[in-house]
Amino acid sequence: MNIPRTSYPRVIIIGGGFAGVALAKKLSKQEVQVVLLDKHNYHTFQPLLYQVSTGGLEPDSIAYPIRKVLQDFPNFYFRLANVEYIDTTCNTVKTNIGNLKFDYLVLASGSATNYFGNSEIEKHSMAMKTIPQSLNLRSLILENFEDALLTSDLNERNALMNFVIVGGGPTGVELAGALAEIKKGILPKDYPDLDTRLAQIHIIQSGDRILKGMSNKASAKAEDFLEKLGVNIWKNVRVTKYNGKTVTTNTDLTFETQTLVWAAGVKGATINGLDSADFVTRGNRIQVNQYNQVKGFEHIFAIGDIACMKTEDFPNGLPMMAQPAIQQGEQLGNNLLQLIDEKPMKPFVYKDKGSMATIGRNKAVVDLKKYKFQGVFAWYVWMFVHLFFLIGFRNRMVVFVNWVYNYIRFDREARLIIRPFKSIHRVEEE
Amino acid sequence: MNIPRTSYPRVIIIGGGFAGVALAKKLSKQEVQVVLLDKHNYHTFQPLLYQVSTGGLEPDSIAYPIRKVLQDFPNFYFRLANVEYIDTTCNTVKTNIGNLKFDYLVLASGSATNYFGNSEIEKHSMAMKTIPQSLNLRSLILENFEDALLTSDLNERNALMNFVIVGGGPTGVELAGALAEIKKGILPKDYPDLDTRLAQIHIIQSGDRILKGMSNKASAKAEDFLEKLGVNIWKNVRVTKYNGKTVTTNTDLTFETQTLVWAAGVKGATINGLDSADFVTRGNRIQVNQYNQVKGFEHIFAIGDIACMKTEDFPNGLPMMAQPAIQQGEQLGNNLLQLIDEKPMKPFVYKDKGSMATIGRNKAVVDLKKYKFQGVFAWYVWMFVHLFFLIGFRNRMVVFVNWVYNYIRFDREARLIIRPFKSIHRVEEE
Repeated sequence: MNIPRTSYPRVIIIGGGFAGVALAKKLSKQEVQVVLLDKHNYHTFQPLLYQVSTGGLEPDSIAYPIRKVLQDFPNFYFRLANVEYIDTTCNTVKTNIGNLKFDYLVLASGSATNYFGNSEIEKHSMAMKTIPQSLNLRSLILENFEDALLTSDLNERNALMNFVIVGGGPTGVELAGALAEIKKGILPKDYPDLDTRLAQIHIIQSGDRILKGMSNKASAKAEDFLEKLGVNIWKNVRVTKYNGKTVTTNTDLTFETQTLVWAAGVKGATINGLDSADFVTRGNRIQVNQYNQVKGFEHIFAIGDIACMKTEDFPNGLPMMAQPAIQQGEQLGNNLLQLIDEKPMKPFVYKDKGSMATIGRNKAVVDLKKYKFQGVFAWYVWMFVHLFFLIGFRNRMVVFVNWVYNYIRFDREARLIIRPFKSIHRVEEE
Repeated sequence: MNIPRTSYPRVIIIGGGFAGVALAKKLSKQEVQVVLLDKHNYHTFQPLLYQVSTGGLEPDSIAYPIRKVLQDFPNFYFRLANVEYIDTTCNTVKTNIGNLKFDYLVLASGSATNYFGNSEIEKHSMAMKTIPQSLNLRSLILENFEDALLTSDLNERNALMNFVIVGGGPTGVELAGALAEIKKGILPKDYPDLDTRLAQIHIIQSGDRILKGMSNKASAKAEDFLEKLGVNIWKNVRVTKYNGKTVTTNTDLTFETQTLVWAAGVKGATINGLDSADFVTRGNRIQVNQYNQVKGFEHIFAIGDIACMKTEDFPNGLPMMAQPAIQQGEQLGNNLLQLIDEKPMKPFVYKDKGSMATIGRNKAVVDLKKYKFQGVFAWYVWMFVHLFFLIGFRNRMVVFVNWVYNYIRFDREARLIIRPFKSIHRVEEE
């Protein structure tokens, strides 16, 4: 990789998510050379992926070119690369486009879908962690409805129109709510020759409440909202098998569906060379100290979802969410400059700004430290916060226009099968 | 295909482009059953595809779900299908999802890229007729710049940064202008470690002027605008070969490029069963009479690009543009109802509303019947007309927001490689 060596120390950041971008911004205009590596040339605003899947937003409005984030920073280098190996003895990152030495390395590679070793489910289910995955899900949902029109087999038609979401976290809840609104507002108009009332949306949750990272009040209200929208919630049920048609669980329950969305777990996206038991802890995340340093190294760090920082309040590590990632990225920026100047670093203290989830039109739940509220006001707060954290004025404007339009018209116009999923990928697989 | 037979006559429309949608709208709320078949579930606003390719617009904002166009029409059926054969003896359309009988058939299948039989060019060049193709071109342009950073071979780097556009019609001209603006405004900021001044944009035109469908004044001014933007225009040159690296022409000129955009010709997208010499004329289009009837049939019609209607002003057939398509679709709607009522049909008379092309910021050329003008005012007219003809309020708003933002900020933020083209398709091909 032909990146010139300068007199400045070189910091390699792996991953342009919330953590990586926050760190890179902090280091801009400082006397360090920053090299950011990512397999995409854009930053993804993951909290809104479910709206891409359900036709409410275009993918381009929740993505932002990484090169643009740091356009004015002279010591910034971006490379589109897959990192294959981290050589900690030679301080070298090995990638598909060549190797690069670092003075400081920051792992910000985020998280990946956790199938808990079930390769059959991995093969047949849909994930929603990246923009291409979300577009695949969008295509599949629409292709299934087109196919439902063609079959006279009632069981097959139901399987095409049913949706099973495994996992009752924010992703599962928000997706279920959006699907319920599509079922109610769009399907009857788009498919008048199909009895879309038969379409069923299921959330399967292994625990005894959904949104288990939030307050009991939020969970209860979210369940209430979902049930009013007609979503079926199955608690204390675990999915054990899925062959592309039938979902088997640890109970008597089975579901017929051609669309299983796996939102039941994430794990750290570790990289070869730092993936041994010396470094990796619960959830496949890399254990870090309070300065985000990886055990045994002064100059190798991990931030965001990939980093497991255990605190008193979070003995299993900080939650895998945007806020800890952004805060760690920002603080590591300051700490790295301190370290380079041979000054003491400051330990990271997580400021819990709360969490929230939307269920649908006028329906959201918000847990702040002091206040917990649900309903219309929570929904406005949810929208405001998401618009605020989106990167880029254009993205905010386009998302805002879409939301206003969708709200007024009860519509989601991006129901476009731009790259068919089923006819291409599913056939290739088999 | 399980579409119920009713007492109404059945009209099958093949293709949801400008012509097909205009016809379907006319037939809505009438006593006919309309079945629209298309291989996409959306209508594409083709005149703005070049802005998708160059990161100025998101694909979702120039596409519109076909089902939504006719949501309130009770006798309307849409099916996502590839039409494989038209059986004119049994009045049946054969598709990948089954067969369907018609009382009236309307071919509105549009046009396809014409490579004039050169399969090597077809294999290696990029087309820009559909949204997936435009997204592929967007990805390729960006991937090439990422790759240019990685090579130390100066020839290869230049080939990665050069763009050759074959064809000086509106598509070629608009794409060249957009690329020139990217070269000037975005590349130097995004790729500070690359000498992007070396990137060259070429238009190769077989005739002696570009925009040959427009006035001499428009052609001259467009050439002037393009040259000021640094685009190289090669007139009276024909491309003969392209192996993915070197463009060979009928002159001494050769070009090194990894991005050849073929905008040199279109042809009618005929369908088996109506593709014999009995029906097909110049440009692979289907010869129709002044009622858009296909020779030998009273109940089979062709409209839009696929139809070749020869008139006094257009002895080779009406131009393959949006206006004749929309006008023919609308008039055929009226004529079909007349025919069903056994009343006389009205011959089609084309109202030439003029033509226009934009070259870039504040630069467009407009030919109206009475007035021909170029420059800033023409540019505003171009924008207004394109916003007006876009289907859907949301699309108009989103495109408008993008244009205002791009204008103020000299930017195009959708420079996202969402589905890599090179690493996936090119590799698979070889």
